[in-house]
Amino acid sequence: MTHHSPLPHTRTEFHSRHIGFTADDQAKMLAELGYESLEALVDRAVPKGVRNAAALNLPQPLTEAEVQAELRAISAQNDDAEAMIGLGYYGTITPAVIRRNVVESPAWYTAYTPYQPEISQGRLEALINFQTMVADLTGLGTSNASLLDEGTAVAEAMTVMRRTSKVKAERIVVDADLFPQSLAVLRTRCEAIGVEVHVADLSQGLPAEEFFGVVVQYPGASGAVRDFSQLTAAAHERGALVAASADLLALTLLAAPGDWGADIAIGSTQRFGVPMGYGGPHAGYMAVREGLERSIPGRLVGVSVDSAGRPAYRLALQTREQHIRRDKATSNICTAQVLLAVVASMYAVYHGPEGLRAIASDVHGKAVALADALGKAGIEVVHDAFFDTVLTRVEGRAAEVVAVAAERGVHLRHVDADHVGISTAETTTVQHLTDVLAAFGASDAELTPEATAGDRLPEDLLRTSAYLTHPVFSAHHSETQMLRYLRSLSDKDYALDRGMIPLGSCTMKLNATTEMEPISLPGFAGLHPFVPAASATGYTRLVDELETWLAEVTGYAKVSIQPNAGSQGELAGLLAIRGYHRSRGEEQRDVCLIPASAHGTNAASAVMAGMRVVVVKTAEDGTVDLDHLRATCEQHSDRLAAIMVTYPSTHGVYEEGITELCEVVHAHGGQVYVDGANLNALLGLAAPGSFGGDVSHLNLHKTFCIPHGGGGPGVGPVAVAQHLVPFLPSHPFHPDPARRDGVGPVSSAPFGSASILPISWAYVRLMGAEGLTQATKVAVLAANYIAARLAPHYPTLYTGEGGLVAHECILDLRPLTKESGITVDDVAKRLIDYGFHAPTMSFPVAGTLMVEPTESEDLGEIDRFIDAMIAIRAEIDAVIDGSVAAADSALRHAPHTARSLVGDWDRAYSREDGAYPAGISDTKYWPPVGRIDQSHGDRNLVCSCPAPEAFEN
Amino acid sequence: MTHHSPLPHTRTEFHSRHIGFTADDQAKMLAELGYESLEALVDRAVPKGVRNAAALNLPQPLTEAEVQAELRAISAQNDDAEAMIGLGYYGTITPAVIRRNVVESPAWYTAYTPYQPEISQGRLEALINFQTMVADLTGLGTSNASLLDEGTAVAEAMTVMRRTSKVKAERIVVDADLFPQSLAVLRTRCEAIGVEVHVADLSQGLPAEEFFGVVVQYPGASGAVRDFSQLTAAAHERGALVAASADLLALTLLAAPGDWGADIAIGSTQRFGVPMGYGGPHAGYMAVREGLERSIPGRLVGVSVDSAGRPAYRLALQTREQHIRRDKATSNICTAQVLLAVVASMYAVYHGPEGLRAIASDVHGKAVALADALGKAGIEVVHDAFFDTVLTRVEGRAAEVVAVAAERGVHLRHVDADHVGISTAETTTVQHLTDVLAAFGASDAELTPEATAGDRLPEDLLRTSAYLTHPVFSAHHSETQMLRYLRSLSDKDYALDRGMIPLGSCTMKLNATTEMEPISLPGFAGLHPFVPAASATGYTRLVDELETWLAEVTGYAKVSIQPNAGSQGELAGLLAIRGYHRSRGEEQRDVCLIPASAHGTNAASAVMAGMRVVVVKTAEDGTVDLDHLRATCEQHSDRLAAIMVTYPSTHGVYEEGITELCEVVHAHGGQVYVDGANLNALLGLAAPGSFGGDVSHLNLHKTFCIPHGGGGPGVGPVAVAQHLVPFLPSHPFHPDPARRDGVGPVSSAPFGSASILPISWAYVRLMGAEGLTQATKVAVLAANYIAARLAPHYPTLYTGEGGLVAHECILDLRPLTKESGITVDDVAKRLIDYGFHAPTMSFPVAGTLMVEPTESEDLGEIDRFIDAMIAIRAEIDAVIDGSVAAADSALRHAPHTARSLVGDWDRAYSREDGAYPAGISDTKYWPPVGRIDQSHGDRNLVCSCPAPEAFEN
Repeated sequence: MTHHSPLPHTRTEFHSRHIGFTADDQAKMLAELGYESLEALVDRAVPKGVRNAAALNLPQPLTEAEVQAELRAISAQNDDAEAMIGLGYYGTITPAVIRRNVVESPAWYTAYTPYQPEISQGRLEALINFQTMVADLTGLGTSNASLLDEGTAVAEAMTVMRRTSKVKAERIVVDADLFPQSLAVLRTRCEAIGVEVHVADLSQGLPAEEFFGVVVQYPGASGAVRDFSQLTAAAHERGALVAASADLLALTLLAAPGDWGADIAIGSTQRFGVPMGYGGPHAGYMAVREGLERSIPGRLVGVSVDSAGRPAYRLALQTREQHIRRDKATSNICTAQVLLAVVASMYAVYHGPEGLRAIASDVHGKAVALADALGKAGIEVVHDAFFDTVLTRVEGRAAEVVAVAAERGVHLRHVDADHVGISTAETTTVQHLTDVLAAFGASDAELTPEATAGDRLPEDLLRTSAYLTHPVFSAHHSETQMLRYLRSLSDKDYALDRGMIPLGSCTMKLNATTEMEPISLPGFAGLHPFVPAASATGYTRLVDELETWLAEVTGYAKVSIQPNAGSQGELAGLLAIRGYHRSRGEEQRDVCLIPASAHGTNAASAVMAGMRVVVVKTAEDGTVDLDHLRATCEQHSDRLAAIMVTYPSTHGVYEEGITELCEVVHAHGGQVYVDGANLNALLGLAAPGSFGGDVSHLNLHKTFCIPHGGGGPGVGPVAVAQHLVPFLPSHPFHPDPARRDGVGPVSSAPFGSASILPISWAYVRLMGAEGLTQATKVAVLAANYIAARLAPHYPTLYTGEGGLVAHECILDLRPLTKESGITVDDVAKRLIDYGFHAPTMSFPVAGTLMVEPTESEDLGEIDRFIDAMIAIRAEIDAVIDGSVAAADSALRHAPHTARSLVGDWDRAYSREDGAYPAGISDTKYWPPVGRIDQSHGDRNLVCSCPAPEAFEN
Repeated sequence: MTHHSPLPHTRTEFHSRHIGFTADDQAKMLAELGYESLEALVDRAVPKGVRNAAALNLPQPLTEAEVQAELRAISAQNDDAEAMIGLGYYGTITPAVIRRNVVESPAWYTAYTPYQPEISQGRLEALINFQTMVADLTGLGTSNASLLDEGTAVAEAMTVMRRTSKVKAERIVVDADLFPQSLAVLRTRCEAIGVEVHVADLSQGLPAEEFFGVVVQYPGASGAVRDFSQLTAAAHERGALVAASADLLALTLLAAPGDWGADIAIGSTQRFGVPMGYGGPHAGYMAVREGLERSIPGRLVGVSVDSAGRPAYRLALQTREQHIRRDKATSNICTAQVLLAVVASMYAVYHGPEGLRAIASDVHGKAVALADALGKAGIEVVHDAFFDTVLTRVEGRAAEVVAVAAERGVHLRHVDADHVGISTAETTTVQHLTDVLAAFGASDAELTPEATAGDRLPEDLLRTSAYLTHPVFSAHHSETQMLRYLRSLSDKDYALDRGMIPLGSCTMKLNATTEMEPISLPGFAGLHPFVPAASATGYTRLVDELETWLAEVTGYAKVSIQPNAGSQGELAGLLAIRGYHRSRGEEQRDVCLIPASAHGTNAASAVMAGMRVVVVKTAEDGTVDLDHLRATCEQHSDRLAAIMVTYPSTHGVYEEGITELCEVVHAHGGQVYVDGANLNALLGLAAPGSFGGDVSHLNLHKTFCIPHGGGGPGVGPVAVAQHLVPFLPSHPFHPDPARRDGVGPVSSAPFGSASILPISWAYVRLMGAEGLTQATKVAVLAANYIAARLAPHYPTLYTGEGGLVAHECILDLRPLTKESGITVDDVAKRLIDYGFHAPTMSFPVAGTLMVEPTESEDLGEIDRFIDAMIAIRAEIDAVIDGSVAAADSALRHAPHTARSLVGDWDRAYSREDGAYPAGISDTKYWPPVGRIDQSHGDRNLVCSCPAPEAFEN
């Protein structure tokens, strides 16, 4: 018998699954860099002044099996009773084929935002279906491809109206029947920019004061279905615009907002197959009438043509977005809700127009039957006309009715002491209705049988216009058809399941299955965001723990996970700063310093928070110019509100000067906002809250493993120092009464995109303090290895101590471009032929490529990337030495489709050199289209599904 | 207000998702055929004599959401306590990345058996990894790619030894420490063919009588680890072979069977990541020493070369299989357990040799700690040497100990009144061990801490040989690597998620997600097959309901779902017939009539059931030659046991003569076995049990939606008339004591592949009687539509009444082949270029293609197929008219890889005509390899992973 190790057993640690570089890989990479250990490398790279004094205080890591068991237990603590609360959240049935093949498919959820359209045609097609669906149903010309939620969509509509109305009065009129959470979000946003929100019952007419816009809910929060056509005409006469927050399902039966004159429609697509998820994520939408296309916020998919002249999709009108226009942008939105928009669009594709209408009729029929039964039982039903929501008046008994219903497993809306609201949905059963009747003490009331009930939709408001007439909404109604459609779309795309996506600043790391699986659990997916606290104790625990851990790793006092995107986290952070200054009587502090290299979203967010942007220069070495900073602070000292700085910088460097920078700004009374975009270079090594930051936002979809979903969902928690805690987002429906009042909400739901928080919770729980720290170190090692190996071919633009970068590196192609005419675009498209997604292009410096490998890749994959970049350098050299003209090179013709290989070939290079450059395997990824003409699409804007004939050869 | 339909709401019926042909499609197809209605078509096609008198008696259909809720409730009735029972079933952790991207991925589970190797390279690579893993761990030269379970693997080993041993005595020696269920399966199989099973404690030496083979368990059922090398040498000296039923996990620590001389190793790969699933499915394995390769049963993947001379995988040595050799075959196995073999192989790929060894050490360490603690507490531990199973002696207290453990949530093995067995596993925790100690009243016993425990593996038996040295077992250890490996493999393959697989006789219909999702529920996945009945009440209900429904639809008295493949269902059915005759004193009845057109498995199964095969001729029109049948029955009247007949026939025709055939056979005392392979043409229209059959087997993986999984799992329930009920399979561990004795088991577990039964349960529950019947009718319509539209181009070989076929049609290519030299193989491979999986080739008639579209396709897809076939006909015509030589045609060069388009092109046709024939979209499926040389691979047999260098360009 030999010796042998028994308990506790050697467990496969998750971090060795998450971190792709083995110990051997790391040793080789360190040798290449000339460091003896990872610790030595990190010690050199990260300034001592910012290094953490102690290890992170996090619970010991669990195994994957343990985390799964734990999350099952937590989800079971949530009560997924039927929610008939309404207010924009409804039970819905996700078709299983869509759940499995979209929500649970890495090919969809690990994809990045479709900025490289040639390798994103699948999700771009899904999104143009989404736009077509929204445009059709709302009766408006152009829809964007999703907003964050209904509340922020209302706020975005406000800014569109404000910008486009001729009325200069800073006032918006809101109908009193708007969803209360939408009103609260709107108030938050209006307050910051000085717009007055005038709430009135518009059935009594418009107010006398001037206003630039009107917002109505259709149908209303109370369930009432009202005709807004006269109101709209009157508003238009006064130069104002009208936005309708509309329920797309109701619009299958009701006249479209576009039909009765609305300029804008916004809302949520949640009930199109997306689980309520305790508030999110769901795709919000905005559609606008002709003439407003170029003012629409967020992403917009358009049709253009590729190099072979065939139709191809890509993001349109990007020049109006925050990453281009900065503080002049139409909105600060970047990450939206792509994955959920895909689900909603596929729900419409699967059901088709007749199917959606049947579901809507069913939902309405159940509401009618309930109203009739209640009426017969002597319960007062307030409105004659309604779609899915029955408002009852029960003098003083509301609380009791709601409580009894909850006991029977149905949540109703407790409107006030005298009113109870009941909303029906796709998931409502006869049993649910019976339980509702029982809660009203109307158990004897008979539910109206099919033949006798009429509807409760006003005759004048019945829908007459057609919708979803494009063939795509009629071609995939069997499950086999749907399955193949989803597969064929995802096969067009390149996602993390095919290979590395080395996007600087985007941290495309592993989204582990163990992190992803729990979000499908009914206990997480099924909850309405406004259920009583007692029904969501699992979520309360999850949120509390995650917020605590995030505070620990960032060195702040407290975190709010409410912001459902990084952009909203930025806004929330700036609003906290704003609130702080105002609480001290320093309302005049409105200057926000932003370094020239900052992400455009920073500036756009500052404007939304009512601040003035002042740019701080960049020094020769890429760092913030501290002299200029000092001078600028002096100049604006009494009005200095904040500086927004990214650390490590957007140049991928740990700047030595960060601590001094913080001191300077603080000395002038300003607050330091540390953008957490690059937190993957800090975790466990340094904490913004410890080295001088007052507030940060994090991107859980970067550092904390929420997948990018092809462009969302994201979560952008805001983390603040103690003095800013009172100014974190509040929410009128927050389960904790103490957090209902405050600066207001930045999301429709108290916990934003709650249902995807298990992903980040699992990541922290699986990795533990050591695992997280190791991941950071390895990410830094990987970036430095790439920078070092590529140095002879592409110099790295900026470096810090010891010539080292942080977790990403900027490859400077400008000299090569100057010499050869070959652009970063050419290199990016050529990388597709080599089987890679391009690095970040021209950010933060035009003409460069920013590479971030993350810790989840392996040496084989990054060596393959390096080899491809070296081979491309040789191709560029051939242009430089005159062997081939830039216009004739494979670089310029990239990417190469398989189709391009057949037929005539009169290129300056062979088919093989074009399509199978060195090292490419027989089973390479083929882009479905050639290079796309961006400007053609913007000149000829088409944002809904083209006719099938357009694709004929 | 207009009128409107309220409750009960219009629900989206599942059958409209399952059946792909819309009402419009059906009308167009009926018009093409000249029928006014589906009913009229079916009335004409199906002989009145076999039509059902009444509608099926099945419960009303539920919606998808209702079925999911119901199955969640049923699964919750099963108790998934930790099972430490052992006997070949152990707790295991399925890596989440494998669960999501294999078990839950349609790209893997909807694939067919890799008979078309060019479009199956992904799963063939996974299977060759499986073979390499098994061969390495067992230390034997060649492994097959899975058997059905460990028990049947033992039986298959028996037949290999019987066939290859020089000893002619019909006796096999079995060590008493063999798993009892394996022994029971072996007895069933030996009894039928007249082999005596001699069970003995072989530690006392070999028996004096002659025997052809020896079977041992390694480690034994009792947990004992014994050295069989001397025993093996002694057996070899007496001319016998030795088979070891071995635990692959133990083999990472213990000397391999091949190292100590075993000729054959068999066993289960369940504990390599495949949930116990209340008994299955799991992949069984068999590995053999050099010299026995050509005797190995089941499927074997080998390496060959493609048309470009590169390595390519395909199934090897098919000439020894049942579909070729019929009653001379080495086994009747066809469908195996491919999907589970893939999971097991990926478990090894993900963990690698060190990882597996660590898991084994952990499992062993826990057993050692437990044994030590029990020993200290004065509990007698029987064996000194063990791996994972501790056998204790507790005089008279066994029942009590097992009961107390069960109360604490741990199932132990109740060996007998005095013995309790405890098996540790990957999932065993310290808490489980603590619970076990408590059950023994040894709560105070301390679990040995890490440093002090030694192991309990005999020094002489420690593993010294290396394993899993191929790079594939070291290259995919991070989750990102694993995800990409799985994606890259599945991308090579063509499955139902890409397009139609019109395989005659295989019924490749939709495997709906709602049917698939429940099998991942812990309540179905986690159960050990031998838990007490009270712990599996959910399964009991599921099985009872499914067996009842299957009896109803087939018109039989009772069904057993125990057989875990169609082949085993056939065997069970024939054993029932055998049992029946013997019970009546008619042991001499051993002639089994089989029509010439029958599937080869029929004949192989008959031989396994101890019968003699007599072939009945086929008449000119393809039907069974009734005159010849009568004559043959006369000839064998007193020895006539049965006829095996498929209905509709394997020719895809509803034969009028079936009722007469049954009468003739019955008149001679024979039983009628109706093969249920073509049940998809009968369901709801006709029932074999009603029109004359005595017994049938069904293929749940055909008619009842269990996906083919790339070649398994399948389920082959056997259905019998009342007089055969006593002869259905029994099982020594059946929860119902009344079903423990009988003809014996045909599977290792009482309910075979229990964990996939929810799929078929869901299908029946979703479709209901009307839906199932409609599906049958539409399947018949689709086949007739294809036959009619292709008639001018490819005549259908056989038809029935009105010139109609049943649910499939045989396209006769023989005249075209004669004229042109273009073979069915050429057409099948050319279809790949057109984006299709080939129909069934050369079965049941050489030189033909058999097409079965099923009801789940849609008109667009089958029209696309028809157009492709017509275009191919034009290509054949060009050969016939001399425009191009057969050898130079695109048909002969098919399939075309993308790689073949680059480089020189000296073909007689253009690249475009080769790779993009008419109608092919830009995003076509590309086969990863060109046409594969089948005979090269058989001549140069390589059945494990080739060195990576072999793939270098």
